Amino acid sequence: MTTNRYWKLNRYPEGNDFASAFSLETSEIPTPRDGEVLIRNAYLSLDAGTRMWITPRTDSYHPPLPTGGPMVGLGLGRVVASRHARVKEGQLVRCFGQWADYSLVRPDDASLHILDESVSDQRQYLGALGLNGWTALLGLRHVADVQAGETVLVSAAAGATGLLACQIARTIGARVHGIAGSDEKCTFLRDRIGIDGEINYKTSDVASELGKIEGGINVFFDNVGGSILDAAFPHMAMHGRIVICGIIAAYASGGRTSGPSNFDQILMKRLKVQGFMCTDFLEMGEDLTAQLREWMDGGKITMPFDETRGLENTLAAYSKLFTGRNIGKVIVRL
Amino acid sequence: MTTNRYWKLNRYPEGNDFASAFSLETSEIPTPRDGEVLIRNAYLSLDAGTRMWITPRTDSYHPPLPTGGPMVGLGLGRVVASRHARVKEGQLVRCFGQWADYSLVRPDDASLHILDESVSDQRQYLGALGLNGWTALLGLRHVADVQAGETVLVSAAAGATGLLACQIARTIGARVHGIAGSDEKCTFLRDRIGIDGEINYKTSDVASELGKIEGGINVFFDNVGGSILDAAFPHMAMHGRIVICGIIAAYASGGRTSGPSNFDQILMKRLKVQGFMCTDFLEMGEDLTAQLREWMDGGKITMPFDETRGLENTLAAYSKLFTGRNIGKVIVRL
Repeated sequence: MTTNRYWKLNRYPEGNDFASAFSLETSEIPTPRDGEVLIRNAYLSLDAGTRMWITPRTDSYHPPLPTGGPMVGLGLGRVVASRHARVKEGQLVRCFGQWADYSLVRPDDASLHILDESVSDQRQYLGALGLNGWTALLGLRHVADVQAGETVLVSAAAGATGLLACQIARTIGARVHGIAGSDEKCTFLRDRIGIDGEINYKTSDVASELGKIEGGINVFFDNVGGSILDAAFPHMAMHGRIVICGIIAAYASGGRTSGPSNFDQILMKRLKVQGFMCTDFLEMGEDLTAQLREWMDGGKITMPFDETRGLENTLAAYSKLFTGRNIGKVIVRL
Repeated sequence: MTTNRYWKLNRYPEGNDFASAFSLETSEIPTPRDGEVLIRNAYLSLDAGTRMWITPRTDSYHPPLPTGGPMVGLGLGRVVASRHARVKEGQLVRCFGQWADYSLVRPDDASLHILDESVSDQRQYLGALGLNGWTALLGLRHVADVQAGETVLVSAAAGATGLLACQIARTIGARVHGIAGSDEKCTFLRDRIGIDGEINYKTSDVASELGKIEGGINVFFDNVGGSILDAAFPHMAMHGRIVICGIIAAYASGGRTSGPSNFDQILMKRLKVQGFMCTDFLEMGEDLTAQLREWMDGGKITMPFDETRGLENTLAAYSKLFTGRNIGKVIVRL
């Protein structure tokens, strides 16, 4: 291959209409300059959070990605050329690059991770050992301080971060309830992940189901917001903690969303509600990965993959994240 | 005096119509039984938070106070009879008793405080050294962890808790902005308390004024909720903390209120929003009082009083809390 295909962002998408916003373009394979690294991507990680980068909003956590250039995302691949002191040709790395055959990056210390090749399924670096794992672990431990015996609720429980939050919470010794959007996902959560209770939000009255949880919810690991957060808020236990890891409910509408409708419960129950992104903690990555690796090697956590083949099919894979069709981590294999 | 007058709660008030809900009754002065203490009240502390005790809601932080009995509240007075091992006749005490000439109480360890008589103005035990002081100090230090050089916003800034939050934040070395509901209050905050910026929410566009605060708001000490919280939310700084100490905006409507309308900012800015009541920390009271006393004796903090004379005028004083007519602590002198 002498050319590089990449997904170009032509304009910010309306809702989930990604086909009108992106085009697959071809260029020459770039040559790294001083401080740059060229990576042949093996897998792209598709993540709902990146939806916030492709809106015109300037009050998001990330400045709007410029239109007219390549789409940016996390990838796993091998270094084919490096002019960066820390990175060597042939190394397996994970970093924020482009939706492309090749990523050209100028890594700082935290944005490119050189990976240990002893992990048998490398894809787990985008799964249990990846940013979804970090998010689940940091959210449960550092933000919510989950204790054994507590009750943890996870929304988007069959998504990549949700599945890891369920498994880590269970490993810590918590009772785990999950909310997901299909019977297939609920069955998966019950039979394969082994959680204590599952709710299909499309066919159940979520608030009423949550009201049956004895003792209330000590920790809510929320990836969704909107009506799911509304339903959970009054069923939190005294001194409960809500970790806001994502607001999927609002991404398509440009991110606007209202706070929970029973907001007075934050005072009545002395709740802590905290927004949180693992990218604030990249320097803790080594320790996080070590803990996750120990659990993965011990069979406590794993990640199923929803794998699409071919860069040309990236948009179809990406849209799964916003229509709730995936179980586990959505990746593209190049 | 051989009789005891007390305010009886006949039914839960509608809005601020307290006259229809309470009546002033007369009974014999009660005699303490084993474990009980009789106190001659000198001052009653009137507190907005008690409004939540007199609604039929069962999901409040406090079970509804039974109708047909006396109204309950914090008071300062002298022990006239005690059958409690720790409490002696003649001691000056502060405890949760009745809106009455005499309070009959059965104190547990945390609910009755025996007071040091070296404080020249005893009323400060309901002010700078009281639960408002504890709330301000705990909220700023233990919940928000305010640092010198940060920017702190306080709502209901001319109320009892708000004034102490302003003064303590300034003493810690923060820049302080306050929101209040009259020019008189704003002038007081600027000239007497010395805060860095004040906003009259009745005559200004609060959101637009908050948008002018350079660097954003690191800590919002919120006593109000509703539209004030809405206005502040988008102007929080990255990793900002919001301490929810009260939701005055919602008390009259029975406590229902929605969360902030730009709730996505909790994720974008990784905000922490935490409900908080000082009554969870009563066992820390000695340390809190020692710190507050040091600041009070050093001239760093004080509390102005809005003092009404006569138990018979209690309802008029109480209603000031909900119509924004007081500066500082509302008390009744018996």
